[in-house]
Amino acid sequence: MVTTVPNKILMLHGSKDLRLETRSIQSPLPNEVQVAVHSTGICGSDLHYYSDFRNGAFAVLAPLCLGHESAGTVTVIGSSVTSLSVGDRVALEVGMACGTCELCRGGRYNICEEMLFKSSAKTYPHADGTLAELINHPADLCHRIPENVTFDQAALIEPLSVSIHGVNRSQAPAGGKTLIFGAGAIGLLTAAVLRAHDMSEVVVADIDSARLTIAKDLDLATKTFLIPQAPMKTEIDEVLKDAQDLAAKIAEVAGVRGFDRVYECTGVPSCVQTGIFASKPGGKIVLIGMGRAVQTLPLGAAALREVDIIGVFRYANTYPTAITLISSGKLPRIHKLVTHKRSLDKAEEAFILAKNGKDEEGNVVVKVVIEA
Amino acid sequence: MVTTVPNKILMLHGSKDLRLETRSIQSPLPNEVQVAVHSTGICGSDLHYYSDFRNGAFAVLAPLCLGHESAGTVTVIGSSVTSLSVGDRVALEVGMACGTCELCRGGRYNICEEMLFKSSAKTYPHADGTLAELINHPADLCHRIPENVTFDQAALIEPLSVSIHGVNRSQAPAGGKTLIFGAGAIGLLTAAVLRAHDMSEVVVADIDSARLTIAKDLDLATKTFLIPQAPMKTEIDEVLKDAQDLAAKIAEVAGVRGFDRVYECTGVPSCVQTGIFASKPGGKIVLIGMGRAVQTLPLGAAALREVDIIGVFRYANTYPTAITLISSGKLPRIHKLVTHKRSLDKAEEAFILAKNGKDEEGNVVVKVVIEA
Amino acid sequence: MVTTVPNKILMLHGSKDLRLETRSIQSPLPNEVQVAVHSTGICGSDLHYYSDFRNGAFAVLAPLCLGHESAGTVTVIGSSVTSLSVGDRVALEVGMACGTCELCRGGRYNICEEMLFKSSAKTYPHADGTLAELINHPADLCHRIPENVTFDQAALIEPLSVSIHGVNRSQAPAGGKTLIFGAGAIGLLTAAVLRAHDMSEVVVADIDSARLTIAKDLDLATKTFLIPQAPMKTEIDEVLKDAQDLAAKIAEVAGVRGFDRVYECTGVPSCVQTGIFASKPGGKIVLIGMGRAVQTLPLGAAALREVDIIGVFRYANTYPTAITLISSGKLPRIHKLVTHKRSLDKAEEAFILAKNGKDEEGNVVVKVVIEA
Amino acid sequence: MVTTVPNKILMLHGSKDLRLETRSIQSPLPNEVQVAVHSTGICGSDLHYYSDFRNGAFAVLAPLCLGHESAGTVTVIGSSVTSLSVGDRVALEVGMACGTCELCRGGRYNICEEMLFKSSAKTYPHADGTLAELINHPADLCHRIPENVTFDQAALIEPLSVSIHGVNRSQAPAGGKTLIFGAGAIGLLTAAVLRAHDMSEVVVADIDSARLTIAKDLDLATKTFLIPQAPMKTEIDEVLKDAQDLAAKIAEVAGVRGFDRVYECTGVPSCVQTGIFASKPGGKIVLIGMGRAVQTLPLGAAALREVDIIGVFRYANTYPTAITLISSGKLPRIHKLVTHKRSLDKAEEAFILAKNGKDEEGNVVVKVVIEA
Repeated sequence: MVTTVPNKILMLHGSKDLRLETRSIQSPLPNEVQVAVHSTGICGSDLHYYSDFRNGAFAVLAPLCLGHESAGTVTVIGSSVTSLSVGDRVALEVGMACGTCELCRGGRYNICEEMLFKSSAKTYPHADGTLAELINHPADLCHRIPENVTFDQAALIEPLSVSIHGVNRSQAPAGGKTLIFGAGAIGLLTAAVLRAHDMSEVVVADIDSARLTIAKDLDLATKTFLIPQAPMKTEIDEVLKDAQDLAAKIAEVAGVRGFDRVYECTGVPSCVQTGIFASKPGGKIVLIGMGRAVQTLPLGAAALREVDIIGVFRYANTYPTAITLISSGKLPRIHKLVTHKRSLDKAEEAFILAKNGKDEEGNVVVKVVIEA
Repeated sequence: MVTTVPNKILMLHGSKDLRLETRSIQSPLPNEVQVAVHSTGICGSDLHYYSDFRNGAFAVLAPLCLGHESAGTVTVIGSSVTSLSVGDRVALEVGMACGTCELCRGGRYNICEEMLFKSSAKTYPHADGTLAELINHPADLCHRIPENVTFDQAALIEPLSVSIHGVNRSQAPAGGKTLIFGAGAIGLLTAAVLRAHDMSEVVVADIDSARLTIAKDLDLATKTFLIPQAPMKTEIDEVLKDAQDLAAKIAEVAGVRGFDRVYECTGVPSCVQTGIFASKPGGKIVLIGMGRAVQTLPLGAAALREVDIIGVFRYANTYPTAITLISSGKLPRIHKLVTHKRSLDKAEEAFILAKNGKDEEGNVVVKVVIEA
Repeated sequence: MVTTVPNKILMLHGSKDLRLETRSIQSPLPNEVQVAVHSTGICGSDLHYYSDFRNGAFAVLAPLCLGHESAGTVTVIGSSVTSLSVGDRVALEVGMACGTCELCRGGRYNICEEMLFKSSAKTYPHADGTLAELINHPADLCHRIPENVTFDQAALIEPLSVSIHGVNRSQAPAGGKTLIFGAGAIGLLTAAVLRAHDMSEVVVADIDSARLTIAKDLDLATKTFLIPQAPMKTEIDEVLKDAQDLAAKIAEVAGVRGFDRVYECTGVPSCVQTGIFASKPGGKIVLIGMGRAVQTLPLGAAALREVDIIGVFRYANTYPTAITLISSGKLPRIHKLVTHKRSLDKAEEAFILAKNGKDEEGNVVVKVVIEA
Repeated sequence: MVTTVPNKILMLHGSKDLRLETRSIQSPLPNEVQVAVHSTGICGSDLHYYSDFRNGAFAVLAPLCLGHESAGTVTVIGSSVTSLSVGDRVALEVGMACGTCELCRGGRYNICEEMLFKSSAKTYPHADGTLAELINHPADLCHRIPENVTFDQAALIEPLSVSIHGVNRSQAPAGGKTLIFGAGAIGLLTAAVLRAHDMSEVVVADIDSARLTIAKDLDLATKTFLIPQAPMKTEIDEVLKDAQDLAAKIAEVAGVRGFDRVYECTGVPSCVQTGIFASKPGGKIVLIGMGRAVQTLPLGAAALREVDIIGVFRYANTYPTAITLISSGKLPRIHKLVTHKRSLDKAEEAFILAKNGKDEEGNVVVKVVIEA
């Protein structure tokens, strides 16, 4: 018997036009569970939609519920679900791949061409996200979290998954020297993952010294590097000369000849360029940050030294790993990256905080979590 | 007892200034053998040195002997050599890596930073190449070739090594669909290697229909694609739009949605761009051609679909493989890629043929071999 | 509207008790198609069930329909199926994995612990196999085959998948030297797959010279080796001494010092032992044959030379590859491995032929196909 | 100018016949350095030679100097050495591979068939080990250690290398659950390496509770498991039944369904058997312990679940990693595994301690270091 209950849901109706509405939600389908959402982190893509009513190529065509970094508690079980019980605390994996294409069957469901990702406007009708009180979701994409994992931590599982997937793809050598560009949430989580590994150096570089301080204070970086603000160059030769110089400086500070792996978490072209130069022969640069779609690169400096350029899109098979790593204490301080929290009815404040990157007192905003 | 004998050697004294000189050559060192060079193929880098007295960043600082695609017969054995005998026919691997750095010990000696490569002006004093009657070379870099491998085939082992290394690095899936840009020697040898594998499609694309005819006639391609000559665009958006359209056309002709692997053997930016678009999600583009050092790429189309950009520099551990593949008949027609031969005293003709790409009768020049 | 039609189905009621029965079959479920089965090959496990009413640990608990190497034509489409049309010719992948466990999501669905495999008695109620006129099967496990693939070839896709998976797992080096134990269907198909690769040696070893003749005649082996019938030893030291001697003889005949990869397709302990000794340092032995559950091995000769022992169970993600390889002509002679065919109402003859391994005229039986 | 100086060297003349002798040592060869040995750990193979004047198949044919886990200070530089200076502290990598075979060039020099390993009787004339005051050794096999690495730590680099190599070969998944058999030096170092990784479980199993206490006290294990002393079975079915039961118990205690990776560091057949059963489908068991050359295994339980059996022999390319891991603090407590030290003139005491495994006061002996 299908029943419906009222459900508060945060809908984006246009640029900066968020409205908390009450809609009804039906019972979950047989393979679904209904989850009372507890915590949802705000992601960069959420901010793009919020500001511009679009995210790159994807324009919003109908009011959209944002949010996909989410965890909550199971309240209703679909008729055929056996893996979960009411009361289970779960992290939601919101990407729903087709499950049958070559990529899905081969273990790379993140790049399934039929992927339906909640809170994204790529597909139409859009699939609403998790910024609501209740959500129905396939049971097999609700990952149970143990008692010792808090909802703050659980809300980080999605961005952490991006980092884990990037690190998995990088195949870093034991004891490796690594460099991360960007001390935002993804950069810092990537640092945390590399620290949980046996990397001997995890250097975090950013233009914002306050963010680097966080990297140091939370022991996520072995060293930090403040990228100096430089006058903008337009000639590509000069740009690349600067990138090469910067790479040399970072290597010098880190006391290495070059890095085994570079993780680019800013999307800024000069960081990609510098990352190529900063890599050892035979190294890899992993593109985690979603950056400009078209970039000019020192391709010779990559190819002739067999520095591979590795793309990373979302994640596959990482939620269990993320939960295990958190639960087993291998990521002891990442919950401190949840720097700010707001309730669902103050969601707009949350978006503004996330967008500004600093709060009223000047503190760095790393991750804002909305609690329903 | 060290003895010296006279040796004819082809020295490049300046742009287009080749001189066949007679010098003396000493007995080989204890770990070396002396080889009577039989055949040496001319490579693109040889042509750069010949035309410009430099190759990209490497200016020639003293007269240089070119040539590194080489095979011959052992004439003298160094005092500590046990692996070879006088009369053995050998292919010469001319890159001499340090043997002790992390990269050498780890199996990637091709990107050893101390590499000394005969015929290259990267290091100074330059190490002379193989365009001579006699050459002394470390025994362990002289790979014995069996009787059923001809000197024409043996002269192809070096460029074939580049292709094998590129294919090794590409980790193509069984039965894969592959695309090659460029029907020059490297592109065609790469096609041959992929055909020897179990690839189900090996599409060769080039702007020259005569070269594509060779690819078909030698059964190196399953399909060919003539890249249309297009008006030069300068706006990057238009350039990339053209690349995307071209990728779609190639895929259509090949009857695929995208390619598992793309092998770029031209170095032309538009081919790299097109190759990215032509790759399947999860595919790889392998940069074999030595192209422009700085290139503008549709990086988003690569990264967001996890299309990895894999550099390839020369080769490591490929000579035994190349010899085995030729000897066992897995590359039955590659010797036909030696389209022209000249004797050492007509070396200049050989260089001009190679440079022109067509002979007087309008036939395509793929590989020119100089016979000493 | 669900309709039922009569369906002839071959049921095994006990040891050697096959009965062709008429049952009804319902319309396919929404995600299924109904397939008119054309050809089904008989597998070793079918023979075990037929002879013993069990297969190793799996006893048959209720009448069971055998057969899982199968291809046919789509006759009815489930209501939600869009990927197939009536009239499509398809190869059936009969293993139905859970799709959501760590192994399924990670691309290794063949070892999913919830796997339901049609024609196997591992699970109860048993899932009936394909030896019937009609079968309902999930559309996404029905792989369309192009026109140029015959039903004889299509019936080989399942065993070929085992070989492809084994070869995939083996990660053989380019130009490698390989050894196969066993010239049954799996051994010969494995040889065919390795020949389609760039392996320079594919040596097939068996105790039956007639089977080796097939390997040679179909150009599946570069060399064959007749394993001499030896007096049975019981002392393990003697057994292993014999294995070591045999390995040395095979290597000598093949002209190699050791093999890069060994594919064991017999399950016979002495072949596993010999295979370990026959491997090069750093090689791998791939266990494709389902052999004795407990075996005594020269483990030191494996471990101290880093010869890895790689298990293979069925296959994952291989049907598209198999179809592509056949369709593109990379496996030009494998259809000749279908040595005998019988109609469904003469199925018992087919089982007896397969069991005997020779027909009345003394010809080798490799693969028997039952045509409905 | 070659000069010789007197050198105290510990020679083994027969079973339990160690003699500290004074011999002369020449100046190092051009590519060598002379090292004043500071610390040498005693290995299991040293103990075999000491007790039996042989190690498995390798009988000692002439008095032999043992010791290969060694570090010291450079005292003299060979004429062509540029990478080291007098006074440098170095860890000695005593295996000298040929450097030119396929395995060496491919990065797997540890299984080079021409390997000359100091302190081993495998080759003749034997190459003396490091239990001496001075030793000449190739400079490129002397790995400089930074100031913050002590000689106690440095003496552990060789056995640590075995662990690192084993872990490298295991390709453990992020956040994996791992099981180690054996709490001797290699087992505990393997635990330390896995803890430095992001493994979420590192369970150490042993029959000696005192050794497990060390594993816990040094935080090398997340959990320990005391293997109960069981009555010896001879029937293989019973033996395997016990192994299967034991595997289930370990998994239960660890709270897992199976382990991603098992590291066997005892060489005891029942541990290998149990390790196979304890592995997850798709797992791997890594054979690090040098065990009985012939073993009876539940091969079906491995192969049918694709549990790979991975051999490990010594190490390749691990010294830099080991040094980096120690120096960067990723292995903070391993120096405590050096439980006992003796001077070179009390070497016999050291051997007896190592052999007994307990000292006079009943304390566990993990690693005994001899200081010259």
